[in-house]
Amino acid sequence: MARSGLVPDLDHFHRWLGEQRRISQMEVRSLPLDHLDGWRTDPDTGNIRHVSGKFYSVEGLDARVTAGPVERWQQPIINQPEVGILGILVKEFDGVLHCLMQAKIEPGNCNGLQLSPTVQATRSNYTRVHGGASVPYLDYFRDTAGHRVLADVRQSEQGSWFHRKRNRNMVVQVTGEVELLAGFCWLTLGQVHQLLALDDLVNMDVRTVLSCVPFAGVNLLRAFGPDLTAFTSSLIRSYGVEADAVHSTSEVLSWITDVRTRRESDAERIALRDVQGWNRDDKKIAHDSGLFFRVIGVGVTATGRETRAWAQPMIEPCGEGVVAFLAKQMNGVLHLLVHAKAEPGYVDVVELAPTVQCTPPNYDAIPGGARPPFLAEVLAARPHQVRFEAVHSEEGGRFFHARNRYSVIEVEGDVDAGHPDYRWLTLTQLASLVQHSHYVNVQARSLIACLHALSA
Amino acid sequence: MARSGLVPDLDHFHRWLGEQRRISQMEVRSLPLDHLDGWRTDPDTGNIRHVSGKFYSVEGLDARVTAGPVERWQQPIINQPEVGILGILVKEFDGVLHCLMQAKIEPGNCNGLQLSPTVQATRSNYTRVHGGASVPYLDYFRDTAGHRVLADVRQSEQGSWFHRKRNRNMVVQVTGEVELLAGFCWLTLGQVHQLLALDDLVNMDVRTVLSCVPFAGVNLLRAFGPDLTAFTSSLIRSYGVEADAVHSTSEVLSWITDVRTRRESDAERIALRDVQGWNRDDKKIAHDSGLFFRVIGVGVTATGRETRAWAQPMIEPCGEGVVAFLAKQMNGVLHLLVHAKAEPGYVDVVELAPTVQCTPPNYDAIPGGARPPFLAEVLAARPHQVRFEAVHSEEGGRFFHARNRYSVIEVEGDVDAGHPDYRWLTLTQLASLVQHSHYVNVQARSLIACLHALSA
Repeated sequence: MARSGLVPDLDHFHRWLGEQRRISQMEVRSLPLDHLDGWRTDPDTGNIRHVSGKFYSVEGLDARVTAGPVERWQQPIINQPEVGILGILVKEFDGVLHCLMQAKIEPGNCNGLQLSPTVQATRSNYTRVHGGASVPYLDYFRDTAGHRVLADVRQSEQGSWFHRKRNRNMVVQVTGEVELLAGFCWLTLGQVHQLLALDDLVNMDVRTVLSCVPFAGVNLLRAFGPDLTAFTSSLIRSYGVEADAVHSTSEVLSWITDVRTRRESDAERIALRDVQGWNRDDKKIAHDSGLFFRVIGVGVTATGRETRAWAQPMIEPCGEGVVAFLAKQMNGVLHLLVHAKAEPGYVDVVELAPTVQCTPPNYDAIPGGARPPFLAEVLAARPHQVRFEAVHSEEGGRFFHARNRYSVIEVEGDVDAGHPDYRWLTLTQLASLVQHSHYVNVQARSLIACLHALSA
Repeated sequence: MARSGLVPDLDHFHRWLGEQRRISQMEVRSLPLDHLDGWRTDPDTGNIRHVSGKFYSVEGLDARVTAGPVERWQQPIINQPEVGILGILVKEFDGVLHCLMQAKIEPGNCNGLQLSPTVQATRSNYTRVHGGASVPYLDYFRDTAGHRVLADVRQSEQGSWFHRKRNRNMVVQVTGEVELLAGFCWLTLGQVHQLLALDDLVNMDVRTVLSCVPFAGVNLLRAFGPDLTAFTSSLIRSYGVEADAVHSTSEVLSWITDVRTRRESDAERIALRDVQGWNRDDKKIAHDSGLFFRVIGVGVTATGRETRAWAQPMIEPCGEGVVAFLAKQMNGVLHLLVHAKAEPGYVDVVELAPTVQCTPPNYDAIPGGARPPFLAEVLAARPHQVRFEAVHSEEGGRFFHARNRYSVIEVEGDVDAGHPDYRWLTLTQLASLVQHSHYVNVQARSLIACLHALSA
């Protein structure tokens, strides 16, 4: 890689990444939940929280959602009221937008190091509660005066595992000189999107921030390069032609309002020790069925560029998930079948999710356990229908080996979308909703980034 | 008034309204909080709730807002988790849009009867928890298939008095025959807006629903008539020319994100009996200073068209409020000085409020009590600057004699808007944000409706 940090091609990038993997090492070992240095189990509630009162805590949730497969349940949940910053710094080199990306290791990543945004910091991080090093490049995002803000929106994260978590997703464009620190490199927007085709490489925080870039009206050809297939030109068309959407945007907004009103959802934080159906032993908190997820403790030792050791509780899901959009050409424009999905951690009842988002075995535990709509179509997709497929990791700072198979499946025949919680939307419509909070969930945002990758 | 329910002119309307006042009578008397039929004070918490568990309850709130005039306080608050429907049915007669309006009497209205939407119903109302009559015209809003939905968005209400209250604001256009029931009439959109110039006539629910009508792109001249002043033509221009906005919409969204992230706001429901600084006696719950508001009990007897009697707790504010936008021509387009205001009952930290929204004496009770920014400019406005002024009532079903003086004050010279919580926005920008939840508060929505009234 050139000293400038620019990456002439992806071979260079992979050599650089390999070097980063050698430099940054992290040892992660299982620890009893009662022996996490800096964390305490509250004797009254059983909640697990940091001694500083900052970062996050593991608490209980009593959730009610009418008209779901299960109408009431209790579960552990992460409460992280702080709003962190996920920021990508971008700059033009020779007329092409480049992103300042970081090779960052996280304890929950199955492969340690993944590609991260320029800045990925909780408020406790950047106010240095644990006395760590200052967060590099943070000032570009804390004071944007003089820079161009391409995206800046607070977005939800996993509503099944987080109680009302929001992060501030930012893309800030600078023109001046930017110092290149060790562990960072400049990739074009096209290169970052190309890397989305690889498993477990572009982390969740990058994916959600990329989805917030307002590509509508942008010359995708120039931004991503000329190698377009029929599918990707339909993607471009889908951005251009709002009038061809099957449902007008005001109809879409009315539908979301209607689902939010029909569904009554209520989630109350309760003491972790009072959560029914879950059991805590030395090592973990697990559901009686063995399904869903477990709360575990890990001890982490990082060596290399920065030496640090810490412990923390994490969520470890049981099994790999399936996250998929069914896609279809309608009125000559690509449409995606969107699910208005209730999750207990959302602020406003439902957010728009991919057509399918589930961990299939979990449904086998539900009495009468019908699998979610359209899962069969996704699992039975034939190779020529699969327009995108890659396994991606969820946030490795909170989730241990949480992986989902993300795909976009193009369908041609009739797909019954008569279900009141599903609608066909264009990418333009989804992308304009991503400019606001509370509309598009993190899995759907990941897939929006992956759809852009089809142009790369 | 013609048998059709159409109103040829406002003289006819006022005669009809006078007749409705004679038909509908309501007696409202003060009752001790412990003697409200159907309501109980919970012995553990002191919360006042309906025996059905429905409707609403009066609870306590422990509020924290960083960087406000007061950073932490406790107060009583209304908890009404149900989402109700505020709906106006519209229909074209001779090519002009007409709204089906209701003359409705509410115990909190200082003058009893005011003009209401077609439907104004909590979920408990329309699921008939108290065994009342069914809600007329409700079906148009519960099943919109076959009709045209002009607006459908869940909006917040008073964030100082309600905990996360939302109502569904709907405008539904029909083409078929609509039966005209007693107490209802058809007014043109222009007529309803003209009536906004009168004190205490068009109720809060009408004002918020009207603000959600997407007038952008609509031919206001045709909708409202030809009697335009220079000011109102600037209003029309302000809708037309997005590019002339002082701040681009992405800058505005980034500013809102920034304020929401800078401000930490947390509001926890607590037991009403634990609320500090407030005292309960037989008749009321009041703040030790005598300021802010009181929780009172009323007994209501309605006679006339429908005879009913009931009791309920209400909030009675202490004093008349001031709600005002400073307005200014910039780049040839009308801009409004908007305040990103934190209120403890909001779901997402702040919403956009008018430049000034306060009850002035309340500030005299705050130690060091600086009055809110721009209040002096509003109170000192000279007659030629006052483009709109009327006293309007807040929702008479929960608030007793809650009145605010709403005004739009045009300024010419430099007004220092360097305060980080204030920005100049065009009406187009505000109106496009009103299409989504969580952006524009109920007082600002009222003033948006009043700004449209300037075209009527």
